[in-house]
Amino acid sequence: MTEVATAHPEDRLLSLNTATVREQWTLEQIIDGCQRHGIGGIAPWRDQLAICGVDKAAAMIRDCGLTVTGLCRGGMFPADDAAGRQRAIDDNLRAIDDARTLGAECLVLVVGGLPPGSRDIAGARTMVRDGIGAVLAHARAAGMPLAIEPLHPMYAAERACINTMAQALELCEELDPGRTGALGLAVDVYHVWWDPDLEARIAEAGRERLLAFHICDWLVPTRDLLVDRGMMGDGIIDLAGIHRWMTAAGYDGLREVEIFSAETWWKRDPDEVLATCLDRHRRCL
Amino acid sequence: MTEVATAHPEDRLLSLNTATVREQWTLEQIIDGCQRHGIGGIAPWRDQLAICGVDKAAAMIRDCGLTVTGLCRGGMFPADDAAGRQRAIDDNLRAIDDARTLGAECLVLVVGGLPPGSRDIAGARTMVRDGIGAVLAHARAAGMPLAIEPLHPMYAAERACINTMAQALELCEELDPGRTGALGLAVDVYHVWWDPDLEARIAEAGRERLLAFHICDWLVPTRDLLVDRGMMGDGIIDLAGIHRWMTAAGYDGLREVEIFSAETWWKRDPDEVLATCLDRHRRCL
Repeated sequence: MTEVATAHPEDRLLSLNTATVREQWTLEQIIDGCQRHGIGGIAPWRDQLAICGVDKAAAMIRDCGLTVTGLCRGGMFPADDAAGRQRAIDDNLRAIDDARTLGAECLVLVVGGLPPGSRDIAGARTMVRDGIGAVLAHARAAGMPLAIEPLHPMYAAERACINTMAQALELCEELDPGRTGALGLAVDVYHVWWDPDLEARIAEAGRERLLAFHICDWLVPTRDLLVDRGMMGDGIIDLAGIHRWMTAAGYDGLREVEIFSAETWWKRDPDEVLATCLDRHRRCL
Repeated sequence: MTEVATAHPEDRLLSLNTATVREQWTLEQIIDGCQRHGIGGIAPWRDQLAICGVDKAAAMIRDCGLTVTGLCRGGMFPADDAAGRQRAIDDNLRAIDDARTLGAECLVLVVGGLPPGSRDIAGARTMVRDGIGAVLAHARAAGMPLAIEPLHPMYAAERACINTMAQALELCEELDPGRTGALGLAVDVYHVWWDPDLEARIAEAGRERLLAFHICDWLVPTRDLLVDRGMMGDGIIDLAGIHRWMTAAGYDGLREVEIFSAETWWKRDPDEVLATCLDRHRRCL
C-alpha cells in the first residue's frame, strides 16, 4: 500500500473509470484504491462486475462512500437479424438492473456500429434508435438514466454509429422530448473535442441531458486508435474550456477519468496512476 | 512491363493519386503506368514533382493525355507566429503556380492542424480562414480552383482542423459567396463516410463546389490512423451510394483513388495495384 498525499477538496469531484487501471487491478483493488486516494467516484465495467459479483461490488462501493458515475456499458444495438437485436435489448435490460443495484447515476450506452458485412450506416442508426426506444420504459421504471455516448467518428464502423453531440441530441429529442432526465448524453472529451459546434451542443443539452463528463487527453501523435489515450494535460484538448462550457450548461456532477493506454498508464504502478489523475484533475480543469 | 487487360470505357473516369504507389514507383514510372493501364487521370504530390521537375512532369502528363484531377497539396496554414503563417501563404502561392503549370483541375488544401503546443482549435480554424483568404485572389487570377479537403476528425490535431463538409461549406460561403467555382471541396470518402449529414451537404455543395472526388475504403479493423486505408470494396464504405449523391449534385468529374497502405498495397507489384484499382472502380461505384 502506498502513502497517499494530502487530499484536496476537488478530489471528491473526480471519479475513476475502472478501465484506467484495468490491466493492473481487480475491481476490489480499484475500489480500495479510490478510497485510499480520496477519489470521490467510480465507474465500473460489466466484465469486472461479473467477476466480482454485482451485489458484492455494490456493497463495497457503498461502504466506501463512492459515487457511481456510470456503469459501462449498455448499447451495441445493431445486429444482422431480429434475434440478434433482441439479444442486445435483453442484455441492456439486465445492464439497467445492474446499474440500479449499484446505485449508478446512469447507464452509459456505447450504441454499436455496423452489423458484420453491412455498409448501411443509416440502417445501423435506425437500429440504435429502435433499441434505445425498446429499453427506455424499463430504464424509466428503474429510475436509471440512459447516457448515449457519442463516440469519435473513427469508431463509427465498429463501436458506435452515433458520432456527434448533435446526433445524440436528436435521438434524445425524438425519444424523450419532455427532457425528463431519462435519456441524455455522456460527454467524453476524447470523442468530441474536435467538434466545431461543441459549445453550442453542450448548451443545447443543458442540465437535464448532461448525464456524465469523461476526461482524458488526445496525444500528438496518437499511435493507436483504441489504446493510446493521454493523461489530462499531456495532449491538446482544451479541458478547462470544455469544463467551463459544461458548468455553464448546468452540469455539476463528477468528472470521470477514463484512459485506455496500453503503452503508458496500463504499465505503471496503479497507485502512481491514481495520484497522477488526481494531480492533473486539480490542475487542468 | 506488364500485360494490361482490355480497357473498359469507365477506366478513363479513374484518376490515380500518386500516393497509392509512391513506395514503388517514381512519378515518371507512375505516369507511364497510368498510360499503359488506360487510367484517365493523375493527381501528383509536390514532393514527387520537386524531384521530377514541374515543367518536365507537366509535359509528360500532357503527352500522355492524362487529366490532372488535383495537385496535392496546399494548405497547412496555422503556425505559432505571423512569420510562420506568411511562409505558409507564400508556399501556397507557389503551389497555385505549380498547379497551373500542370493544368490541374484544382489545388487540394489540407488546411493544417494546431500549431505546436496549442490547444486552441478555434484559433487554428481562424488561421485557416485567413490563410485561404490571403491566397484566393492569386488563385482566381491563375484560374486555379482551391479544393478544401475536410479531413477525418482523427486528423484534427495534426493535419486539418476542417473536419466536416459543413465546416468546409461555411468557409466557401464566407470567402466565395458568389459560388464562382474558385473555392470548393475535395470530397474524400475516407474522411466523410461517417457524416450523418453527408447526402445533404453534398447536395448543398452542388456542382460549383464539388471540385474533386477521392475514393478508397475504410477497413474493419483499421490498424493504423494514417497508412491503413483499404482498396475499394474491401471495407465498409457505401461507395455506390456516395457516388450516387455526388452525381445527383452535378459532379461529373473523375474519381481519384488515393490509398495509403503500408502493409498491403505499398508492398504489392504496382502494376497489380493499378489493375486492382481499375477492376474495383468498375465494380464498386
